[in-house]
Amino acid sequence: MKLSDIGEAGWIKRVRARSPSIKEGVVLGIGDDTAWVKSAENILITCDLLIEQVHFLRQLIPPRLLGRKALSVNLSDISAMAGVPDYALVGVGFPRDIKLAYVEELLEGFLEVAVEHKVEIIGGDTTASPVLSIAVTLLGHPAGEKPVLRSTAQAGQELWVTGTVGDASLGFEILKKTESQELDISDLHHSSLILKHFDPMPRISVGVRLAGIAQAMIDVSDGILIDLQHILEESAQEKKLRAVLELEKIPLSEDFVNYFQGEPFKSDDALRLIFTGGEDYELLFTALPEKEEEILRLSQELELPISKIGRVEESETTEVVILDQKGNPLSLPLPWFEHFPQEDS
Amino acid sequence: MKLSDIGEAGWIKRVRARSPSIKEGVVLGIGDDTAWVKSAENILITCDLLIEQVHFLRQLIPPRLLGRKALSVNLSDISAMAGVPDYALVGVGFPRDIKLAYVEELLEGFLEVAVEHKVEIIGGDTTASPVLSIAVTLLGHPAGEKPVLRSTAQAGQELWVTGTVGDASLGFEILKKTESQELDISDLHHSSLILKHFDPMPRISVGVRLAGIAQAMIDVSDGILIDLQHILEESAQEKKLRAVLELEKIPLSEDFVNYFQGEPFKSDDALRLIFTGGEDYELLFTALPEKEEEILRLSQELELPISKIGRVEESETTEVVILDQKGNPLSLPLPWFEHFPQEDS
Repeated sequence: MKLSDIGEAGWIKRVRARSPSIKEGVVLGIGDDTAWVKSAENILITCDLLIEQVHFLRQLIPPRLLGRKALSVNLSDISAMAGVPDYALVGVGFPRDIKLAYVEELLEGFLEVAVEHKVEIIGGDTTASPVLSIAVTLLGHPAGEKPVLRSTAQAGQELWVTGTVGDASLGFEILKKTESQELDISDLHHSSLILKHFDPMPRISVGVRLAGIAQAMIDVSDGILIDLQHILEESAQEKKLRAVLELEKIPLSEDFVNYFQGEPFKSDDALRLIFTGGEDYELLFTALPEKEEEILRLSQELELPISKIGRVEESETTEVVILDQKGNPLSLPLPWFEHFPQEDS
Repeated sequence: MKLSDIGEAGWIKRVRARSPSIKEGVVLGIGDDTAWVKSAENILITCDLLIEQVHFLRQLIPPRLLGRKALSVNLSDISAMAGVPDYALVGVGFPRDIKLAYVEELLEGFLEVAVEHKVEIIGGDTTASPVLSIAVTLLGHPAGEKPVLRSTAQAGQELWVTGTVGDASLGFEILKKTESQELDISDLHHSSLILKHFDPMPRISVGVRLAGIAQAMIDVSDGILIDLQHILEESAQEKKLRAVLELEKIPLSEDFVNYFQGEPFKSDDALRLIFTGGEDYELLFTALPEKEEEILRLSQELELPISKIGRVEESETTEVVILDQKGNPLSLPLPWFEHFPQEDS
């Protein structure tokens, strides 16, 4: 059975019927020209596009996980503001011959994450498209009095990151090497790494608790280097800022370390993934040194590693310096991620 | 010069620099993980996808007009709630080889409409895509105490529509027949009809004034028949509702009438365009009979036709009945618009 057998209107009816009412603030959800919600005084809003061939390959990612990921990457943006998610709008462009079962699985995955994080779907758009395209808009509100921005880092603050980094991009590289068409993730070697790529965990719980602790925050979507660069550039005042990272303190998963035979910091490939791999969706934040104990207690309580990886300093140039075990700066000829790479001319 | 020459970050900087600050409520616009706005108590939210090959052909629509249309169709949804638009988020997927000049024109058009309707761009997403894809999310608030829904029509109310219908879809049909690759709209015959397709005018000004007058309202995006059907279905209570339209009262433009040699109601093609053409983006609403004078005064003041085209009645079945000049019901074998048409099997 194809999506075309029930049509656009039939599909919207199904989405409407299966989306639970979660939020008191929703006066009017799916089904009118716009949604209507009673709003908190401060609202946070973000939107992200996920496009086939660019962000995912339909033959590789199972539809349920794609549905989960479509919401998770947006949740990650809200978490990076120390925000609480509230409402989602979902615009989807489906290829005309797509199977209904595929679309149902996609919705299932999306709803799983929505219910887990108490997000209500209040609207969207369904249309045909040459490639599967998903545009999610997410509204939320700050957990504290105001959100944590990326532009409020200052010299003297320390740098922290949640979880581990590099796993998702390593998982993606492993995946690209597999040839299986009918993918059964549980059968795969390195399945935990691949799952980090397919099914990132948005750090909502810890993000909310970092209100009042984090001074500046961002989620690691493009890799530590670029995302740190964003913090430094946006936070620069009269003086520029640099970040000094201690290589050995960068948190890595056991699977990641094992993949590189226990010596990830000696592999150029590993370093590239760690610093520019992206899609970790961990939280990278600065905090005053006196907050260290509080952060470590939070880490214990939430059973989530939160690692101090460096500090912010005044500088003549905006840069990220990585120090090796001996305290010497590492020089990495790292390609930055770019959606529109310049062609070789 | 291509978009890839300035890259994603360069492009976002340009958008940020060129988007004027319009709204007091914006605490944090483009540039962080999410936007942050001080909100009205009631917010209206809508999102729409515009996808190349489905909603537009890149070789036909000039980029400035595509930029205008991307915002206008969302504004139309806000107008259909008797709402005031406030903030926009713009997700764009660009083909990797797209020219910078094209993208600049697109932004220019979008900003023209944004400034005209006092909408501030507060965020978005820019990515690569196999086909040009535009996802706009628009936030606004009701002009009155609450918005006008599509689910509040009742028997005894009269049916009204702003402007004229059928022009945009006739314009699109004419356009498809032209063979010119380098399109100069001003040179074309029927340019007003084609412009109605390329550059619909969202009915924000009249929508706002219809708060307190209109009982139920929708914008005509899929054609009068389907959009009326939405009102009737959503408004049905114990009893179902039907709409009875008087064919001769349907407002048509001079250009439309002339195209059909002065006798549009005798042409099956014309009837198909009028009733199922879509993309008119006019407002279709119900009102109590005693509001007639007020509506006609508003029409005069805004110099915009607002035409009474029929009435809502109780009925055994949800249906739209169209009466010809003699009061006889017209039988139209009309195909309904469907994004996912069922294939002939």
